[in-house]
Amino acid sequence: MDAAALNAFLTAEFPQVAPDFSVTEVGPEGVVLRLAVGGTHLRPGGTVSGPSMFALADLAIYCAILSRIGPVALAVTTSASIDFMRKPAAGVDLLGECRLLKLGRSLAVGDVLIRSDGVEAPVARSSMTYAIPPR
Amino acid sequence: MDAAALNAFLTAEFPQVAPDFSVTEVGPEGVVLRLAVGGTHLRPGGTVSGPSMFALADLAIYCAILSRIGPVALAVTTSASIDFMRKPAAGVDLLGECRLLKLGRSLAVGDVLIRSDGVEAPVARSSMTYAIPPR
Amino acid sequence: MDAAALNAFLTAEFPQVAPDFSVTEVGPEGVVLRLAVGGTHLRPGGTVSGPSMFALADLAIYCAILSRIGPVALAVTTSASIDFMRKPAAGVDLLGECRLLKLGRSLAVGDVLIRSDGVEAPVARSSMTYAIPPR
Amino acid sequence: MDAAALNAFLTAEFPQVAPDFSVTEVGPEGVVLRLAVGGTHLRPGGTVSGPSMFALADLAIYCAILSRIGPVALAVTTSASIDFMRKPAAGVDLLGECRLLKLGRSLAVGDVLIRSDGVEAPVARSSMTYAIPPR
Repeated sequence: MDAAALNAFLTAEFPQVAPDFSVTEVGPEGVVLRLAVGGTHLRPGGTVSGPSMFALADLAIYCAILSRIGPVALAVTTSASIDFMRKPAAGVDLLGECRLLKLGRSLAVGDVLIRSDGVEAPVARSSMTYAIPPR
Repeated sequence: MDAAALNAFLTAEFPQVAPDFSVTEVGPEGVVLRLAVGGTHLRPGGTVSGPSMFALADLAIYCAILSRIGPVALAVTTSASIDFMRKPAAGVDLLGECRLLKLGRSLAVGDVLIRSDGVEAPVARSSMTYAIPPR
Repeated sequence: MDAAALNAFLTAEFPQVAPDFSVTEVGPEGVVLRLAVGGTHLRPGGTVSGPSMFALADLAIYCAILSRIGPVALAVTTSASIDFMRKPAAGVDLLGECRLLKLGRSLAVGDVLIRSDGVEAPVARSSMTYAIPPR
Repeated sequence: MDAAALNAFLTAEFPQVAPDFSVTEVGPEGVVLRLAVGGTHLRPGGTVSGPSMFALADLAIYCAILSRIGPVALAVTTSASIDFMRKPAAGVDLLGECRLLKLGRSLAVGDVLIRSDGVEAPVARSSMTYAIPPR
């Protein structure tokens, strides 16, 4: 699936969150997912909430898997870790750059660097394992 | 801070998420936080979204810290891990039972078991580290 | 498998590490594993090395799984997280208390609290996922 | 500190493990650490033990920190996660490639990809947080 197909899939299957996210790149190693930061993602002090960044990482890895195996809606996250390292820059979107490190028959593993758009130093990093149902 | 004080603090400081969460118990080892599961937390198939469970775990540990040191709004999550183990029961709330394992001067660590209300087998487990600003 | 059977299994299958470890309790929720702390486990300052504590947690969860499903040597760790919270007490063994939180057909999840023998405050906590081969 | 200085530091401060490890590269983003795989690292079936890979990741991040701030022996690991993804290739060393993602005043975060020497697909990934004592 390319970026357009992934965005169409998100809109159809995840209507509650799809307006906030868009796949901007799909490559051989993974994908880049953008979070359009809005008021619902912010916490006091103007930082982006942890659950919003978790959602960005989770969805980026999910999209990286789908880009390789097609629209398997029932892949589910089994394990995740995330480190919050810096406060995001104010007023800009967040980008989640995912590398798919393993894509096995039943388990996939990816990691994600989250950056404020235009800023080199990462805001957060995450890695997650997905269980893929038998096909 | 007791349960009433924690709930008042959440309402004042986190108005965007406070309506979904309520502290139901505060004890010497930790707290219990309830997530009133509603349509915004659900995913296709009726499961509760990963970011919603992450938010429950994160807030439960935050409340456990505040119950011991008072309203320090600026404590921030630095590291987190979460394992999703079972699908939540349909139509019931989720409870996050937090144990505060360490409360040091600058770092606190807690873990959380998430259960569907009334069901023994846990849905998820999580552990998180918070950085506490100098007081 | 009870404690004696688990210890015999470790001696037979893991001769390199078995002398350091012994299962001391097996219960319905999990097991307790003891690490006989010796010179090879220590680091400058007298603390127990991180890899030694990782090994204790890993083996405790493995034993908890075997206590329920029998001697399946090929179960393997897929994901792990560990938090180091306090320096161990000098000159005493470490105990890893494991709770088996999930035992599914293909994945098992457990967590472990590591304590210095006789000390209440935990030294470390860990959680791990194991993949169990088809039986 | 460059590779020679790091290797000399490991030999002096960690005599129990230093013979197994050697820093082979130090760059602006991080370091590469080699584990000379020997009999003590192996498990039944010829795989490298989880604690050995944990030690490789832990030490790689430690060396990456020291390469930037000098010989601070007392930096300690506070949180770690590791995913084991593939069985290592038989009979070859393991390389841990560390990126230092954050180096703050009190906390540092790095991640590590572990590969069998000469093999592209990673064996494991890990991320860790270190607490750095006041200087």
